[in-house]
Amino acid sequence: MQESGSSECSVVRAVSEAPVRDLRRVPIHPDHWYPLALSREVKRGCAHGVRFAGEPVVLVRAASGTVFALEDRCAHRQIPLHDGVVDGETIRCCYHGWTYDCSGQCVNIPYLGRERLPNGVRAYPCRELDGLVFVFPGNPALAESTPLPSLGSVASDAYKTRRYAREVACHYSFMHENLMDMNHQFLHRRVMGQMTAHTIGRRHGDDWVEVDYKLARETGRRPLGEAVVLGAATEPTETNEDVMTIRTSYPYQTLQIRNPDATLMLDLWAVYVPLDREQRRTRAYGLVSIRRPRTRVLLDIVWPLLIWFTERIFKEDRWAVEREQEAHDAQGGDWNHEVFPVINELRELLRRCGGSSARRVIPLDTPAASAD
Amino acid sequence: MQESGSSECSVVRAVSEAPVRDLRRVPIHPDHWYPLALSREVKRGCAHGVRFAGEPVVLVRAASGTVFALEDRCAHRQIPLHDGVVDGETIRCCYHGWTYDCSGQCVNIPYLGRERLPNGVRAYPCRELDGLVFVFPGNPALAESTPLPSLGSVASDAYKTRRYAREVACHYSFMHENLMDMNHQFLHRRVMGQMTAHTIGRRHGDDWVEVDYKLARETGRRPLGEAVVLGAATEPTETNEDVMTIRTSYPYQTLQIRNPDATLMLDLWAVYVPLDREQRRTRAYGLVSIRRPRTRVLLDIVWPLLIWFTERIFKEDRWAVEREQEAHDAQGGDWNHEVFPVINELRELLRRCGGSSARRVIPLDTPAASAD
Amino acid sequence: MQESGSSECSVVRAVSEAPVRDLRRVPIHPDHWYPLALSREVKRGCAHGVRFAGEPVVLVRAASGTVFALEDRCAHRQIPLHDGVVDGETIRCCYHGWTYDCSGQCVNIPYLGRERLPNGVRAYPCRELDGLVFVFPGNPALAESTPLPSLGSVASDAYKTRRYAREVACHYSFMHENLMDMNHQFLHRRVMGQMTAHTIGRRHGDDWVEVDYKLARETGRRPLGEAVVLGAATEPTETNEDVMTIRTSYPYQTLQIRNPDATLMLDLWAVYVPLDREQRRTRAYGLVSIRRPRTRVLLDIVWPLLIWFTERIFKEDRWAVEREQEAHDAQGGDWNHEVFPVINELRELLRRCGGSSARRVIPLDTPAASAD
Repeated sequence: MQESGSSECSVVRAVSEAPVRDLRRVPIHPDHWYPLALSREVKRGCAHGVRFAGEPVVLVRAASGTVFALEDRCAHRQIPLHDGVVDGETIRCCYHGWTYDCSGQCVNIPYLGRERLPNGVRAYPCRELDGLVFVFPGNPALAESTPLPSLGSVASDAYKTRRYAREVACHYSFMHENLMDMNHQFLHRRVMGQMTAHTIGRRHGDDWVEVDYKLARETGRRPLGEAVVLGAATEPTETNEDVMTIRTSYPYQTLQIRNPDATLMLDLWAVYVPLDREQRRTRAYGLVSIRRPRTRVLLDIVWPLLIWFTERIFKEDRWAVEREQEAHDAQGGDWNHEVFPVINELRELLRRCGGSSARRVIPLDTPAASAD
Repeated sequence: MQESGSSECSVVRAVSEAPVRDLRRVPIHPDHWYPLALSREVKRGCAHGVRFAGEPVVLVRAASGTVFALEDRCAHRQIPLHDGVVDGETIRCCYHGWTYDCSGQCVNIPYLGRERLPNGVRAYPCRELDGLVFVFPGNPALAESTPLPSLGSVASDAYKTRRYAREVACHYSFMHENLMDMNHQFLHRRVMGQMTAHTIGRRHGDDWVEVDYKLARETGRRPLGEAVVLGAATEPTETNEDVMTIRTSYPYQTLQIRNPDATLMLDLWAVYVPLDREQRRTRAYGLVSIRRPRTRVLLDIVWPLLIWFTERIFKEDRWAVEREQEAHDAQGGDWNHEVFPVINELRELLRRCGGSSARRVIPLDTPAASAD
Repeated sequence: MQESGSSECSVVRAVSEAPVRDLRRVPIHPDHWYPLALSREVKRGCAHGVRFAGEPVVLVRAASGTVFALEDRCAHRQIPLHDGVVDGETIRCCYHGWTYDCSGQCVNIPYLGRERLPNGVRAYPCRELDGLVFVFPGNPALAESTPLPSLGSVASDAYKTRRYAREVACHYSFMHENLMDMNHQFLHRRVMGQMTAHTIGRRHGDDWVEVDYKLARETGRRPLGEAVVLGAATEPTETNEDVMTIRTSYPYQTLQIRNPDATLMLDLWAVYVPLDREQRRTRAYGLVSIRRPRTRVLLDIVWPLLIWFTERIFKEDRWAVEREQEAHDAQGGDWNHEVFPVINELRELLRRCGGSSARRVIPLDTPAASAD
């Protein structure tokens, strides 16, 4: 990966954007692992219907506890398999009882001889990691060689982690831009107080963009929530400020806050999964890990406050990105007038790494079969 | 009518469907009599607005008790006549008081001389039969020579009949296929228990398809509802099973159950009337007649149970056909992969007998008129 | 202005309408002053978001009390300015804090040097008059030379005035036609009793149409509401009837009732402002002025009754015009079959004076800017 840039250097000109396609119409690239559910949403012996960019997918947790993922339609009359019945390691459509195994193969039609079974439905590579069910919606031949993402400090005992999934009515790109542009602290002025972000460095490569901030408080008081998150009892001064690093490493995003000792205090991993074909609705998955203080139980005590605090911030961000999407829909194009170089780099990245065009799933080849 | 086929013979190949048009886009043929309301919905001295395939129709029961059917719009400013006022044998638009008789002729405009009355609106052939108001939406010249359907055992004193009308959010063809394919008993497993249908014969002609079934119970117990419907206290055995015959005689459908003595125990007549222009919403009309047992009052006693039972079955079927329609809309075409020959014959029939293309009603020629 | 016509003369032929465009697709002409809010809806220190024909407009009442009108979008990320914060005589976007003055100029971006500020957003000419906030959405060069409308008897102490604003789901032309065609009294038969309108004169010019009516009661009794409105205790006779004059002077409309002494008893001023781009939703603004009787307080006493009465009439009219719009949408064109010459003249007027085609706002030229 080529590194380049810093806060002193080049200006990304809006001019260069002229001939490029509308970022809000760039589909997410399917050749990555995306979480399509929290593990706890897929109960044993149950089927759970989800969507990736308009494609219906059923996640089945079989009797053995393993999860598999199929097209969420019966090959026969196309009704969703997620309303079917899990039977051992198979799923039966609830209408005429057609039965599929974890490879999507149709293994039984009650009123048809087994020698005449038609083709079944598509199966998706599927893996479970740290409480998320990941699916590889793209070219299945690439699944094996594509690593699952690293989910940050989740596995470490030194951190306490919260998992969340929230639906947001906008294109995934708005979510990336929202988190990366810390100049939007004005939006959170009621929760966070008046803060100003100072960019202190930025870097980028072929499939990533990264920026470092120091956040300065305009007034002296530090809100409770923030104190809790950063675990510091004393006011930061010019020399002992925390550093926040935000990185989009396509298609994932992280936000890390390190204290002056370079200890990782807060570690957020997030990804934004399109739900509908037009990619106007997104499910945001996140894992927020907070470093436990020396008196470890203190974090458990303030945890509910911390949840309230992050929910409040998320609600304000959601409001903003949904207004952005509405404006885009009404204006019929991308009128965004960005002046912040990091965000212009991020926009280039999302265009460059995005999918080529909207996917259209076609049924597997299904040779004629017949019975009586 | 040419008869052909039986359960032993030919296989209808999906291959032959390739070049044909999408069944779910075949409009129903308008040159038949269709019920547009239950008689009880059209009260004396009242107007009742309905739709046939997107065409607004007003049914007016005049002071004399006769029902007539007009386009449901005032020729003047197009607001619905069904919000108007029935005045003797005429209907007055509620806006400026334009008045129409049963032929659609405009017979009065309060502020215009009668010698200058403009043309009115279209009238539809309309007849009432056995509690249903039938309209002939197609070529009116064919109405006289087209017989009203026979409504089965409704008129016979030996049967008790229930009339129903239910809106379902799908193309009418899904309704025909649902009823005719008894292999979908798995859908009703909670209400009916585990049953298996065995096809014992099938026949078809130019405008009809018919299939006979024996239904075998996988477990011994017979649910109460079914016992009530079939009026038998004893368990069926291999030799004394009932026979169910389902027939689509375009555009109507019947289901009849005969006991081993060939006595007609249950007689269902149904038709599925498209409501919107795209024919994605349908009103299903049905008449279910059950043969009274020797102690006639017994049927009246179990009637509420019977209603509960059929409502429950209908609810499950509606769920399934609406999911099929949703899948068709999402997939943008007919991915149906049918393996059951009777249903493939039925699908051919519905294509062959269907209308040629979506109707578009244009206003009657209205020469200019003016007044002051 | 050329005057012509009277009730005796020419017939406007529907034939002449054949090649003209569908009236319901004629956009309102933007080069007039339109109220976009009641003054009381725009509170000091607050921003209020409204729409004109799909264009979002923010009305800002600054700290000084003056109202200004801008495009309702931040030039940066396009979210509505009406959710921003009024700061003195400026408005700040709530997301990243970009600040605009009353001319739409961007005067501050907290994280960008002032020498590099980008262009801002469009400002609209804006004036306040008699409790309404008027905006000139068309060519701003014409605003100065285009007079604000005269709002009738609002300013006179001899009258008591009610202001209202109501949203109606139809094209503005239906509103003009509804008020001008008094033959629709049948619609109000429950509130007004059976009345008949007699046209006693009509006139028109380049940008106006006017008609005089006498209203005759079919039955003797005069409803309370009407007696209150017209302030007369005695029954009208053939010789002392009131005269009602309705005028559309593009784009405004007035209705005046004079008693036999030619005293103006009721004076209504109204305008219908399209809200959405398709101009299918309209906000009707009205000022109804009623002449006070000699015992002035009597009018205050019956005022609530009068409000009830006018609300009821408005509700019935709204019902009718919304049904007309629905019929137009379903029929896909204008099937209106008008027989009343005044209304045909009005329809010609609305076509002639209407806008040429739907407006599409484009962003101001925004040269690239960048910062860090």
